[in-house]
Amino acid sequence: MNRRMIFYMVGNIVLLEAVLLLLPTIVALIYQEMNGVNAFSITILIAAAVGAGLKIVFRPSSRVIYAKEGFIIVTFAWILLSLLGCLPFIISREIPDFFDAFFETASGFTTTGASIVRDVESMSYGMLFWRSFTHWLGGMGVLVLIMAILPSDSGRAIHIMRAEMAGPVIGKIVPRIRETAKILYYIYLALTVIEFFFLWAGNMPVFDSAVHALGTAGTGGFGIKADSIASYSPYLQWVITIFMILFGINFNLYYLLLLRKFKTVFTNRELWFYAGVILVSVSIITYSIYPIYNNFSDSVRHSFFQVTSIVSTAGFSTADFNLWPDLAKGVLFILMFLGGCAGSTAGGLKLSRVIILFKAVRKDVRHLLHPRSVAAVRFEGKTLDSATLHGVTTYFALYIILIAVTFLVLSFEPSFDLQSNLTASVTCCNNVGPGLGLVGPMEGFGGYSWFSKFVLTFAMLFGRLEIYPILLAFYPKTWTKK
Amino acid sequence: MNRRMIFYMVGNIVLLEAVLLLLPTIVALIYQEMNGVNAFSITILIAAAVGAGLKIVFRPSSRVIYAKEGFIIVTFAWILLSLLGCLPFIISREIPDFFDAFFETASGFTTTGASIVRDVESMSYGMLFWRSFTHWLGGMGVLVLIMAILPSDSGRAIHIMRAEMAGPVIGKIVPRIRETAKILYYIYLALTVIEFFFLWAGNMPVFDSAVHALGTAGTGGFGIKADSIASYSPYLQWVITIFMILFGINFNLYYLLLLRKFKTVFTNRELWFYAGVILVSVSIITYSIYPIYNNFSDSVRHSFFQVTSIVSTAGFSTADFNLWPDLAKGVLFILMFLGGCAGSTAGGLKLSRVIILFKAVRKDVRHLLHPRSVAAVRFEGKTLDSATLHGVTTYFALYIILIAVTFLVLSFEPSFDLQSNLTASVTCCNNVGPGLGLVGPMEGFGGYSWFSKFVLTFAMLFGRLEIYPILLAFYPKTWTKK
Repeated sequence: MNRRMIFYMVGNIVLLEAVLLLLPTIVALIYQEMNGVNAFSITILIAAAVGAGLKIVFRPSSRVIYAKEGFIIVTFAWILLSLLGCLPFIISREIPDFFDAFFETASGFTTTGASIVRDVESMSYGMLFWRSFTHWLGGMGVLVLIMAILPSDSGRAIHIMRAEMAGPVIGKIVPRIRETAKILYYIYLALTVIEFFFLWAGNMPVFDSAVHALGTAGTGGFGIKADSIASYSPYLQWVITIFMILFGINFNLYYLLLLRKFKTVFTNRELWFYAGVILVSVSIITYSIYPIYNNFSDSVRHSFFQVTSIVSTAGFSTADFNLWPDLAKGVLFILMFLGGCAGSTAGGLKLSRVIILFKAVRKDVRHLLHPRSVAAVRFEGKTLDSATLHGVTTYFALYIILIAVTFLVLSFEPSFDLQSNLTASVTCCNNVGPGLGLVGPMEGFGGYSWFSKFVLTFAMLFGRLEIYPILLAFYPKTWTKK
Repeated sequence: MNRRMIFYMVGNIVLLEAVLLLLPTIVALIYQEMNGVNAFSITILIAAAVGAGLKIVFRPSSRVIYAKEGFIIVTFAWILLSLLGCLPFIISREIPDFFDAFFETASGFTTTGASIVRDVESMSYGMLFWRSFTHWLGGMGVLVLIMAILPSDSGRAIHIMRAEMAGPVIGKIVPRIRETAKILYYIYLALTVIEFFFLWAGNMPVFDSAVHALGTAGTGGFGIKADSIASYSPYLQWVITIFMILFGINFNLYYLLLLRKFKTVFTNRELWFYAGVILVSVSIITYSIYPIYNNFSDSVRHSFFQVTSIVSTAGFSTADFNLWPDLAKGVLFILMFLGGCAGSTAGGLKLSRVIILFKAVRKDVRHLLHPRSVAAVRFEGKTLDSATLHGVTTYFALYIILIAVTFLVLSFEPSFDLQSNLTASVTCCNNVGPGLGLVGPMEGFGGYSWFSKFVLTFAMLFGRLEIYPILLAFYPKTWTKK
């Protein structure tokens, strides 16, 4: 194993974080928050020192890496990004406790949006911006960004990209990884900017428009108001709804749209399934909540917002769905597992995995009927080999085990009930954000003990990186020579 | 497909039910319950007519059947057994509503033990006995019983046995299926009789001892008191605890014990895992409930009873665990999924499947580390081929889908909350019995609408037959000629 290259690459990422931290520093300067400027500056110095140190100490003799190294680089990078990224909160004393700040930052990078902040409206602009900016960085991936910037050979980069990007199959848009990463980031940036203008045009203040665009793009969900998006106008709520849907779609499809390959886009199975899931859920929930609002347009708006917020795993809210009937809550609970499309910034299981699970089941049913037949399973125009098929079913088992273990640990909390603990683990493992009960959309995760927060922090990281990378990084046999 | 043979075999099973109904008739006669005698007699006549009719009309020219026919026979047999088996309740007016009686009877045969009866203590002896007797019949399997009685060639019988018996791999104890079925039933009967004597020796009335022995043996859980087992002495509670554990163990191990193959028994991985699950759960729950009882021996007894009741999927209770702390409830909730050992009368996922899921995950982790290595997965001294491994992971996906769909349908109930609906679907799909909230151990399923009861009835059948048989029986392509 190329250990030097692992730490060298992690050094690169930490240096990038130092550079990226300049942005919230500027925001803090604009709003003349000297406490924030101070906190960001110290963090930049620390990150620069750590990054440069790692690069100097571990200068590699060979740059060759394999899948194994890719997984470890991504794991270490994400943990270190969150550890260094939480320093501004601690130094500025806006989130003085380490476990709180670590939770909040990991929740940002993993685009979960679960928060321990009790009074978000009292936070400074700089810190609020940094929180939402971590969503944006984590959404598409910090290592994907590195690859878009630094020159590197594709053979090396694909291992890192595969480890960081979500979904059962990673499609390279163009043969060269660096170009793929660049195209993805251009589309991402363009959509974010468009959303910003739509929000701003609807009379949302510039700062609010910026953080909400960043938070929607990463499908993160950190808000800057105590009631999330509830106090903004219906127009603004609809804009965010539409962009949450858009950011939950596979980015490859946008590239295909630019190439005018309309047929490929509109025959995409996952896209239709995504539309179907949203429409069915919205219909059921509108039916369920109509008696509360007694108004069709409000019921549709709130159910559309909450459904797309949960299925895209953004986690914003315009209503306290904790107070909705149990039918609406039940549908949202199921949606918390699904997530958006693969290759989007959404978390969760990913809809293509859900489709593949159904196909795996149907294949087994058919096999029972005709034991000697060998039927190929096709998806998105390609034949799925059995390795992919079984990879998905096994991943699903691991994913349920992760949720169950997280839930079991949370159950030791004396003051949280079963529903809160269950939805907390589901919502964190799927990077959604809000749950039900004590972790509902108008509540927070601040009531958990430091230990539970630490466990949930790792649940979010496990969820964002799709479990295997972290499992491998901490699996002793990974580190022994073969 | 050999359609005639399907209905002919179903006719055999219905005839057997007519014979078996003589037993509760005798009980009703002993207690001079003429209403019950009447109801049972009419049912016997109907069942005999239906059974004989099917056998005469569908006398098959060929007796050859394959896996497909096996699945359909088992599905139809189980549905018809429950439909005819619910007639005594309806005719006697003790459970006048069809959907209630169908639910109750399917709950009996599937050894779930979930009940819609609101005042169980007012039911007649005959009906109470029949309820518990269905547990005993469904536990080991009615078709397995037929095979033990009727002569049949092994090639035919194995398809039926495989469809009815639970677990990822069905082991024939001896080469001939009929002998295997006989041995299983002898062991089953012997253990039931032993339990009966242990209960009777502890001053439990003869009738109570009989129904509880039948209910424990099938890991069913229908009680005859409003508070289940709570009002019996600690000695009796411990006896039932021990026998719930024993009936959750793979019956092949008892045969191996009789053959003095002690080493094979005590190196059984699933058995050790079973012991581990029970001991860890009991420890956590004892810790959790100690403050309630303030007494170590009571806390241990109640936690042992409830843990073994849930993990063996019997579903008896000595305490209203609905009132326990959320830690205890959380552990019991996870146990509701697991179930006992394969080849036992327990429901649930089965522990061997859980072990295999972990092994499948570990295999994939290792494969990521060493993509070119091909490591064999071993379990219980045998190498698991990849078909078994993937069969288990795919079954798990289907199993979670079943629970999710059941939960979604239940969510339309206006007066049930999310926790009740979720645990109701988990407890029915796993044939456990009690859930949490409104379907807790001291509550019942009577509050659900007829539609939800009907859905839950099929959830129980799906769970008991492990999904595939029913799915195949209602899959249109099964019935088209190839």
